[in-house]
Amino acid sequence: MRHCDAEALVQWGVACLRAQDVPDDDARLLAQSLVQTSLWGVDSHGIARLPHYLNRLSHGSILARPEITVSRTGPATAHVHGGQGLGIVVSHRANRTAMDIATETGVAAVGVSDSSHCGAMGLYTRDAARAGMVGVAFTHSDSIAAPFGGHVPFLGTNPISIAFPRAGGEPVCLDMATTSIPWNRVMNARREGKPLPAGVAVDADGADATDAEAARALRPLGGPEYGHKGYALALMIELLCGPLNGNPFGQHISPMYEKLELPRRLGAFFIVVDPARFPGGPTLAATVEQMARELAAEPGQPRMPGDPEVACDAQRRQHGIPLEPGLWAEIGIWSERLRVAPPALRGPAA
Amino acid sequence: MRHCDAEALVQWGVACLRAQDVPDDDARLLAQSLVQTSLWGVDSHGIARLPHYLNRLSHGSILARPEITVSRTGPATAHVHGGQGLGIVVSHRANRTAMDIATETGVAAVGVSDSSHCGAMGLYTRDAARAGMVGVAFTHSDSIAAPFGGHVPFLGTNPISIAFPRAGGEPVCLDMATTSIPWNRVMNARREGKPLPAGVAVDADGADATDAEAARALRPLGGPEYGHKGYALALMIELLCGPLNGNPFGQHISPMYEKLELPRRLGAFFIVVDPARFPGGPTLAATVEQMARELAAEPGQPRMPGDPEVACDAQRRQHGIPLEPGLWAEIGIWSERLRVAPPALRGPAA
Repeated sequence: MRHCDAEALVQWGVACLRAQDVPDDDARLLAQSLVQTSLWGVDSHGIARLPHYLNRLSHGSILARPEITVSRTGPATAHVHGGQGLGIVVSHRANRTAMDIATETGVAAVGVSDSSHCGAMGLYTRDAARAGMVGVAFTHSDSIAAPFGGHVPFLGTNPISIAFPRAGGEPVCLDMATTSIPWNRVMNARREGKPLPAGVAVDADGADATDAEAARALRPLGGPEYGHKGYALALMIELLCGPLNGNPFGQHISPMYEKLELPRRLGAFFIVVDPARFPGGPTLAATVEQMARELAAEPGQPRMPGDPEVACDAQRRQHGIPLEPGLWAEIGIWSERLRVAPPALRGPAA
Repeated sequence: MRHCDAEALVQWGVACLRAQDVPDDDARLLAQSLVQTSLWGVDSHGIARLPHYLNRLSHGSILARPEITVSRTGPATAHVHGGQGLGIVVSHRANRTAMDIATETGVAAVGVSDSSHCGAMGLYTRDAARAGMVGVAFTHSDSIAAPFGGHVPFLGTNPISIAFPRAGGEPVCLDMATTSIPWNRVMNARREGKPLPAGVAVDADGADATDAEAARALRPLGGPEYGHKGYALALMIELLCGPLNGNPFGQHISPMYEKLELPRRLGAFFIVVDPARFPGGPTLAATVEQMARELAAEPGQPRMPGDPEVACDAQRRQHGIPLEPGLWAEIGIWSERLRVAPPALRGPAA
């Protein structure tokens, strides 16, 4: 496993994006967002996704210089048309719009249409929480999860993120898919010839698939017994992100890794709440920290959501971000194609 | 199993509440809400809870004539002080405030403090959805769920509900606790001498408890492997309902069935979104129905969230609401104590 420093990966990412005509500010925002996600240990949504975005830029289904339109549709609402831009750039714009409106009105809701894959939703909710707000974010994706009671892929892994400010530390942050595992984990099990855990995927006949080769769809969070919950949550997120914003839903969504010339028209939905408008607002961040201390004093010393990511961030800032061989190979290919210097590796002495 | 018609139970509920000095409008709203919940088949939050509310009214920890204060705290926000009133009455007030504000501003957030048990959250979100809005609702409860990584009860079963309008039918509605099972199910297993399923509860040492007698805490949704998701969701709901509104959290919340003379100071949080402010608004309800049709055409014919409740409602309106022997006995006790005629039973020929 090779390792790179965060800053080296940011610089490499910016250079690649600049080589594809992405404006400097957008390139920096995107590269920093991906590298931050890698620092948190969320490798599935980190720098490993940049080659995919570069690929879609080169196919023209993501535009380097999109026309992003922000329309204030009500005193506390807005709609952002992503213009087929980079999803992370579009989503930061939407989330910051929600933060601005919420400062005026106390709560804001901003919907996104015609965007693309928007990375880890915790990027946006933590941004809101760092500014003292409560951030809530949703997005959807192409069909990979079977509905509860069915077994053909219909909804995506449709994640939800919520973050709160925390006194003296990074925000507390929920950022979860509504399936038990991501599809990546099925791909990894196939590559390694390992079985899947029971209750997380189904085969073509709807039977539980522990054979990764036979898996055809993920089960919703809750598995065979309680998966009606994960399914229902995913469906509500689908409606918030898709139909509410005029985007396609379910099986109508163009797949991430196929039809690379086709814009995906993905949606997202951001809600920001200003705690100052509620009685507990002034003491909220301190109470979050008090809750963390009370939890840590319990048997098992449970952590707050987001704490594992903060610990990983510290570790990776010290020791570098690990890059598995397949990713390192892709970095080489894109460096060559875009005539960009590959990121410097950390030396063995580092 | 005895059965009563919905209207007979509403009349009985209203009479009991009137006998405890609850104003007529509030009594009717509460009784109708509980009976509606029973019609949906959610017996844990239906008419079976009325004896508990009557008990707290008689202990003075729920007030029959509370001073409920609605404060508009921002252009799109409000805070409702429940004045230790009946939680369902307070929550309808808060939710309707959110609906009114959202009509003006596009989205509204209303927090509740100093309230009591507020029943099934689907009551409120479906109300919003029937008016063409998107309803979102949260509440918290006393400690019964172990945090992921811990095994002592800390958070409640903290539910979330989201509902959308649906063309030509009842709203589609998610209404779920963030644990796999409710504590009621542990109590039932104890009474019937049956085991619990694996992965839903822990014993005093944090080991998986399939022996209902040994169960000391519920596991969050996701169980031993993926319970970090249910836990994180419950914790965010706790912060939205408790600390944000100045209410206690976690182990500081007074238990539901103990200390009956102590007001519980429970919170709730309502968000209402007006679809008219988003591009898909005009076609939203039709698209929800289209999604339902596409799902029903899939193998296994998956249903939409809320469909089972609608089916149960139709069945129970025809055949009556079942009342298990323990509940029928409680109905008898309260009828006698409050000098109210017990509800008419459906005859065997009905």
